[in-house]
Amino acid sequence: MMLRRGSLVMEVAMLVALALASALGSAEGAYIAYNTSQGIVEGKINVHLVAHTHDDVGWLKTVDQYYVGSNNSIQGACVQNVLDSVISALLADKNRKFIYVEQAFFQRWWRNQSPMVHKIVKELVDSGQLEFINGGMCMHDEAAPHYIDMIEQTTLGHRFIKEEFGKTPRIGWQIDPFGHSAVQAYLLGAEVGFDSFFFARIDYQDRQKRKDEKNLEFVWQGSRTLGSSSQIFAGAFPNGNYEPPRGFYFEVNDDSPLVQDDVLLYDYNVQERVDDFVSAAISQANVTRTNHIMWTMGTDFKYQYARTWFRQMDKLIHYVNKDGRVNALYSTPSIYTDAKHAANESWPLKTDDFFPYADRANAYWTGYFTSRPAFKRYVRTLSGYYLAARQLEFLKGRSDSGPNADALADALAIAQHHDGVTGTEKQHVADDYAKRLAIGYTEAEQLVSEVLACLTEGKLNASCRNVSTKFEQCPLLNISYCPPSEANLHLNKRLVLVVYNSLGWKRVDIVQIPVSSNSVVVRDSDGKEIESQIWPLSSPSIRIRNFYARAHAGVSPSNAPRFWLAFTVTVPPLGFNTYTVEAVGSQSKHEGGMSTFSSVFVQEDAETIEVGQGNLRFIYSADGKLSRILNKKNTVDMLVQQSYTVYRSYNGSESDPQASGAYIFRPNGTIPTGTAGRIQLTVVRGPIVEEVHQEFNTWISQITRIYKEKEHAEVEFIIGPVPVDDQVGKEVATQLTASMITNKTFYTDSNGRDFIKRIRDYRADWDLEVNQPIAGNYYPINLGMYMVDRNFEFSVLVDRAVGGASVADGRMELMLHRRLLHDDSRGVAESLNEVICFPGECEGLTVGPTNTRYATPLITLGQSSKSTAEDMQQLLMTAFSKMTIKQNEQGEWFLDSGAATHVTGNAGPPNEENVC
Amino acid sequence: MMLRRGSLVMEVAMLVALALASALGSAEGAYIAYNTSQGIVEGKINVHLVAHTHDDVGWLKTVDQYYVGSNNSIQGACVQNVLDSVISALLADKNRKFIYVEQAFFQRWWRNQSPMVHKIVKELVDSGQLEFINGGMCMHDEAAPHYIDMIEQTTLGHRFIKEEFGKTPRIGWQIDPFGHSAVQAYLLGAEVGFDSFFFARIDYQDRQKRKDEKNLEFVWQGSRTLGSSSQIFAGAFPNGNYEPPRGFYFEVNDDSPLVQDDVLLYDYNVQERVDDFVSAAISQANVTRTNHIMWTMGTDFKYQYARTWFRQMDKLIHYVNKDGRVNALYSTPSIYTDAKHAANESWPLKTDDFFPYADRANAYWTGYFTSRPAFKRYVRTLSGYYLAARQLEFLKGRSDSGPNADALADALAIAQHHDGVTGTEKQHVADDYAKRLAIGYTEAEQLVSEVLACLTEGKLNASCRNVSTKFEQCPLLNISYCPPSEANLHLNKRLVLVVYNSLGWKRVDIVQIPVSSNSVVVRDSDGKEIESQIWPLSSPSIRIRNFYARAHAGVSPSNAPRFWLAFTVTVPPLGFNTYTVEAVGSQSKHEGGMSTFSSVFVQEDAETIEVGQGNLRFIYSADGKLSRILNKKNTVDMLVQQSYTVYRSYNGSESDPQASGAYIFRPNGTIPTGTAGRIQLTVVRGPIVEEVHQEFNTWISQITRIYKEKEHAEVEFIIGPVPVDDQVGKEVATQLTASMITNKTFYTDSNGRDFIKRIRDYRADWDLEVNQPIAGNYYPINLGMYMVDRNFEFSVLVDRAVGGASVADGRMELMLHRRLLHDDSRGVAESLNEVICFPGECEGLTVGPTNTRYATPLITLGQSSKSTAEDMQQLLMTAFSKMTIKQNEQGEWFLDSGAATHVTGNAGPPNEENVC
Repeated sequence: MMLRRGSLVMEVAMLVALALASALGSAEGAYIAYNTSQGIVEGKINVHLVAHTHDDVGWLKTVDQYYVGSNNSIQGACVQNVLDSVISALLADKNRKFIYVEQAFFQRWWRNQSPMVHKIVKELVDSGQLEFINGGMCMHDEAAPHYIDMIEQTTLGHRFIKEEFGKTPRIGWQIDPFGHSAVQAYLLGAEVGFDSFFFARIDYQDRQKRKDEKNLEFVWQGSRTLGSSSQIFAGAFPNGNYEPPRGFYFEVNDDSPLVQDDVLLYDYNVQERVDDFVSAAISQANVTRTNHIMWTMGTDFKYQYARTWFRQMDKLIHYVNKDGRVNALYSTPSIYTDAKHAANESWPLKTDDFFPYADRANAYWTGYFTSRPAFKRYVRTLSGYYLAARQLEFLKGRSDSGPNADALADALAIAQHHDGVTGTEKQHVADDYAKRLAIGYTEAEQLVSEVLACLTEGKLNASCRNVSTKFEQCPLLNISYCPPSEANLHLNKRLVLVVYNSLGWKRVDIVQIPVSSNSVVVRDSDGKEIESQIWPLSSPSIRIRNFYARAHAGVSPSNAPRFWLAFTVTVPPLGFNTYTVEAVGSQSKHEGGMSTFSSVFVQEDAETIEVGQGNLRFIYSADGKLSRILNKKNTVDMLVQQSYTVYRSYNGSESDPQASGAYIFRPNGTIPTGTAGRIQLTVVRGPIVEEVHQEFNTWISQITRIYKEKEHAEVEFIIGPVPVDDQVGKEVATQLTASMITNKTFYTDSNGRDFIKRIRDYRADWDLEVNQPIAGNYYPINLGMYMVDRNFEFSVLVDRAVGGASVADGRMELMLHRRLLHDDSRGVAESLNEVICFPGECEGLTVGPTNTRYATPLITLGQSSKSTAEDMQQLLMTAFSKMTIKQNEQGEWFLDSGAATHVTGNAGPPNEENVC
Repeated sequence: MMLRRGSLVMEVAMLVALALASALGSAEGAYIAYNTSQGIVEGKINVHLVAHTHDDVGWLKTVDQYYVGSNNSIQGACVQNVLDSVISALLADKNRKFIYVEQAFFQRWWRNQSPMVHKIVKELVDSGQLEFINGGMCMHDEAAPHYIDMIEQTTLGHRFIKEEFGKTPRIGWQIDPFGHSAVQAYLLGAEVGFDSFFFARIDYQDRQKRKDEKNLEFVWQGSRTLGSSSQIFAGAFPNGNYEPPRGFYFEVNDDSPLVQDDVLLYDYNVQERVDDFVSAAISQANVTRTNHIMWTMGTDFKYQYARTWFRQMDKLIHYVNKDGRVNALYSTPSIYTDAKHAANESWPLKTDDFFPYADRANAYWTGYFTSRPAFKRYVRTLSGYYLAARQLEFLKGRSDSGPNADALADALAIAQHHDGVTGTEKQHVADDYAKRLAIGYTEAEQLVSEVLACLTEGKLNASCRNVSTKFEQCPLLNISYCPPSEANLHLNKRLVLVVYNSLGWKRVDIVQIPVSSNSVVVRDSDGKEIESQIWPLSSPSIRIRNFYARAHAGVSPSNAPRFWLAFTVTVPPLGFNTYTVEAVGSQSKHEGGMSTFSSVFVQEDAETIEVGQGNLRFIYSADGKLSRILNKKNTVDMLVQQSYTVYRSYNGSESDPQASGAYIFRPNGTIPTGTAGRIQLTVVRGPIVEEVHQEFNTWISQITRIYKEKEHAEVEFIIGPVPVDDQVGKEVATQLTASMITNKTFYTDSNGRDFIKRIRDYRADWDLEVNQPIAGNYYPINLGMYMVDRNFEFSVLVDRAVGGASVADGRMELMLHRRLLHDDSRGVAESLNEVICFPGECEGLTVGPTNTRYATPLITLGQSSKSTAEDMQQLLMTAFSKMTIKQNEQGEWFLDSGAATHVTGNAGPPNEENVC
């Protein structure tokens, strides 16, 4: 019965689809069948009409809001409409083509469709009418993401396409990101297998020159090392956007002139529109090599009713080809790329990258390298956590019913969007990304805890059943908040700490956790007491802890932990180790020789203060400022100053409205930070780590840690709340000025993978007209930056994406925080003014502690660079459990559950191949 | 081959249509098939979801712009999208229903569709999924159109529906017009065959009372005469609009909460939305009799992508019915009406009409009764002309290839739209209506000229071939511009005038034409000289002629005609007569006794001035004002004053923003017109007509004509340019105050057909709270208004739609012109400030001459009312030819072409039945 009813509907539906397809207008005011079957015609200008929509995976609305079309008062956008209506429009005429890009949306839609629609869409994909290009979950940014995240999110999308459709996207399509990275070109382009790579946003000066010289399309070698073996054909669109030529916008309610070919209605305009088309085509052909040009027929969230576009394109193709001066066709970037390849043209060569990006004078999109630094840190931290979690999940075996790492994978994938980790989305959307990450983390945390319990109980092979250990983790350790480590340790209770190393080499690192007692001992997995150091929390740390724990975790920690405990851990490759912490009553005595060293804050008044017990020494002068860095091992002795610069953000004026904003960095001079005078400096001395606490003013402070065993210092900047009572936005940078002769040259990484040479006020591809000497020299940093001269190498590594520059010789500068009061008119329509609220109390977001590293000589080059980079990305994973631990008669430790517990070991099969 | 390819597409298309139909969302985030098959369920509140779009046939954009979707910067609206996407949406689920109303749009669309679409749509109409309701070309206004035009435009739509689909619309659907007429209810409702009639706009006080008493639906007897034999079930919507309940708007980009039923996405809200639905349903059920309520799911130009609505309605029907508290179904007003009929409920009775309409205090929509008076006159004139032209076309036989009257019929039909003849459209749209009328007229004029030539040459039976006479007509006679009558008449050239009478009775009337010589004779069809009168044009007339001829016709009449020529014509029923005018050299002598009387302007200084040579006499006092009207035949002697009132338009203020505008009349006191002092009065005396010229101020003047043979006076008001240098809009009314005791009572017509009794400050249906004592007593007038008391009857007939009132006993007032500087916030977003421009010169539009008639006793009641009404509507048609006319030896006249010419006769077959 259903089938019969179905087939009636079918018959009707087929008729309509066929007929609605091409039935519009006429010379006598009646039905006209448009001829849209034209392919490429040699010898003519071929206008490739590429029907597309650009669907931000979060920007003004969240990804789900965009998908279902809710919250339309902010932006009328509904991806569901796009995909529904595109499918119908494609069915109506087999010559029509469409490309789809963002898999986060496509997967949502796909999930909601019936098996019949699945079948139909597969046919459309098979026939090439619907083509997936780019194909990641989102169109990731190229400045703020780490290359690992770019690969992960791309793979997540491609895998789905491969599984469902048996296809692999051929084309890179990064049409909206705000500048383009070398890693994108060679790693996410050529190495991913793309045949070409298209984008829109390159510097306006560069674009003009490329137009003048027909160099908008070129061969891009993104990697110095791989060179031509990893090059890709790339094209920048001629107008700096990914929209149709002016006057060819056909969304519902758009006001471009429609092709009116019904002679019985007023405003018949076929010849006029054909002339417009031909003229736009010729104008583009004049800046393009070969006689193939591409028109990007769409823009953000268009094709909500796809027929509005296809109706007009049908007519244009029909009448333009009748006219015959140029040739118009439905096309895709793949067809276009094939035509370019076939043309046997020679192309200019491009190396390096397309950063920074300015779309006009005084509009450098270098602010977003730093915008929302706390969110950027959250993404980076979870990215490392995710990789470790996936590793552990693999050990245990993946469970569909969860807990698993899928939600975190999804959340991380969409956070790479070019209005995600960039910090250029509206606040509620940033909150949505963070919420998704938190939900994903929570599930992954459960997974990790389970697997760690299995590992420690040795039950991995028994499918991890009957595990009794409960591990907790401390995602809020960065605000000194870690309930399990802060717990009161009674006499027979021990804090068990498991440390997991997801990397392929043994790691020795320092663990630092808050504890509530200053009288503890730390034992290794053999039960042997090891050296540890304990010292009180500073009062700024306690203030941050109390405020943020209330705001984020909804708890009011009544008893602040009063002490930091630090000790050295050693963890095998892809393995774990276990440590215990126990309280020692004031009456009890320490056994063994390795006692806990109690440190205190010292205010030193000497002429110079030297900090550090190992090779690395930092020398501070009497005014509390850094003056020298020594490395005894390498006989480095370098004069170094560190300072802060607070840029006044340009607010925009009537005559020059370009304000500094979420995207754009436009400083308007600086204001004093109070660093001119003497800086409050206190020191924590100790055998493991020495800390220098400096307070530059009431809202800028930092802690520098120098570990006895490490060749780099670690710096925690704590910036905020940035005051804006004077109604001026502020952007806070720190500067390191060394006695080096760098000749304008410095180096920044590309997505945490390679380093690219940068020269101040210079671009390799054109004569730079400098209009923003600060902002125009900023580059995106994901791993770090460095300078080299004859005598020294000096590097700084970062724990998240930031912007960095060298605006004077011997100087490196990192932008740490931005609090702005104006929008920069690139669509987000909000000022980047992050505040953190707890009922009755709001304040500007404090950013920090960061975990930035300075080193000289470089710790990022040469042999060690890969491991250093991964060290930064993949922190050791720690988890806690409070357990009664007993020793048996043989002196072996065991859990009170009675289960035999492994306290150290390799996680994977004991195979050397696991170690890279 | 094509067929094979076709069938492949078909298969795919059917699958998609089926599947896209109901494939959305799911409890596990997967495909859900929604159950939308529910019909009426007894014992529950049945929510009839009526999917509809309200498509204005011109308002902010022109009809063609709305159809194709151009000019979207003014308003995003494209009817093509609506119809395309609705058809697809209906095919996707056979339970879905839609109603379509405006045939002007539907016909445009239909013409563009392929035979296959025609077939599909016919099936949808057959199955009841698509239903035409109302079914006229437009949704005509009910205040400003003449009932003949309402019938014509409705018939034009219905005929198409009948021919194409074999259906007759069952339902009246006047959901937007601004008040509702008795004629609509009985003539365009019951008599058209409608089963019910729905609308939205009734007085806010009335609506509140009806809601309180569950009287929103009722039985309406619009005709006192026909009573219950012509009654109709009628319903006013509860919220004064034709939109969905708040929160249920689902157009692309609307921001009502969507039903979100994908559990894998954020913001799942099924229960919330079901609760909203149930609560809105209960609230409406509480003001409605029976357990059937209708939700109008749509509004202006909605369903541009129909699926956005149907997707949500599918879900609502599915989940609301699962919930079970109320029953939701796809329905139409027909199904709803049947349910109401089946309910066996008793309904309140309504008589008379719903004028005037106020949507809130101080917002009486009585301004539009007069807005754009020149356009209203143009429509009325062409309406009469059209009927005559159709008659002549019928005589000759209709030609598809033209010239025919179809374009005029179409133009007149859409001009009846409730933002057409109402004057509430944007200026460019008013221009478009006028342009269409002018084009339609031009074609009809050609037709008329041809048929008149055939008639006069007696060639009707010979298919009207080889006609040599060329007739010209004078549409600009109202600005004294008539090139053929103004031509120089040489000795052997004669001006031939053919006068056609489209009515079924013999008519005797006065023809008045401009001529350039004051020395002419007029001969009847027997060649006999007849009495005529000639007098110079007044200088105001010449000024208007020169300015408007340049502006409208693009000509600069170098030689103004200097004289009016008037003479009496007699025309047989449905017939014509011919007159000739020849110049008489000063040297030649008049033959016969009937000489041309040369009149002159006389400035009379007597105590009283009596004008008129027949029964009707007007007495003016020494200050130049009318004081008495006498009718010797009926021994009437009535004191009458005539004056002008210039209302200051309310401009709106912050606290009380409702300004007077195109829709709304809101006076703010009056300003002096200068009528207090002595009025300039001159008189033209003569045997046929006497004219009184009065100049009230520099921009208000009038000419009163009293014909010897007529019982009514004719008045030409000439108003404008209305000065607005003081930044205040002005609305100009004239008042006739008679010595009558009218006890608040007066009578106005309903669409030119019946008269309805009006009582000042009173409504039959509720206790009126008076907040606008002037504007709230205005009524629409199409034929006229009158007052009666024991002694006198006094009537005024109008030549176009105007607003009229009796704001004091014994007084009638007509609003003649409005020039406004503010918008009244009902959407048109323009101030009604008509100007007329000629390069380098713009001025406020002058309105006039009007052709308004005063009479006492009434000339509109009793036996003669029908003929008087039609006299007003169907003016005699005149056409001119300059020919050499010769007399043959028998003394017969003949044309120089040699063709035998009929100079008088009945147009139709000589059958008495032609005469009504």
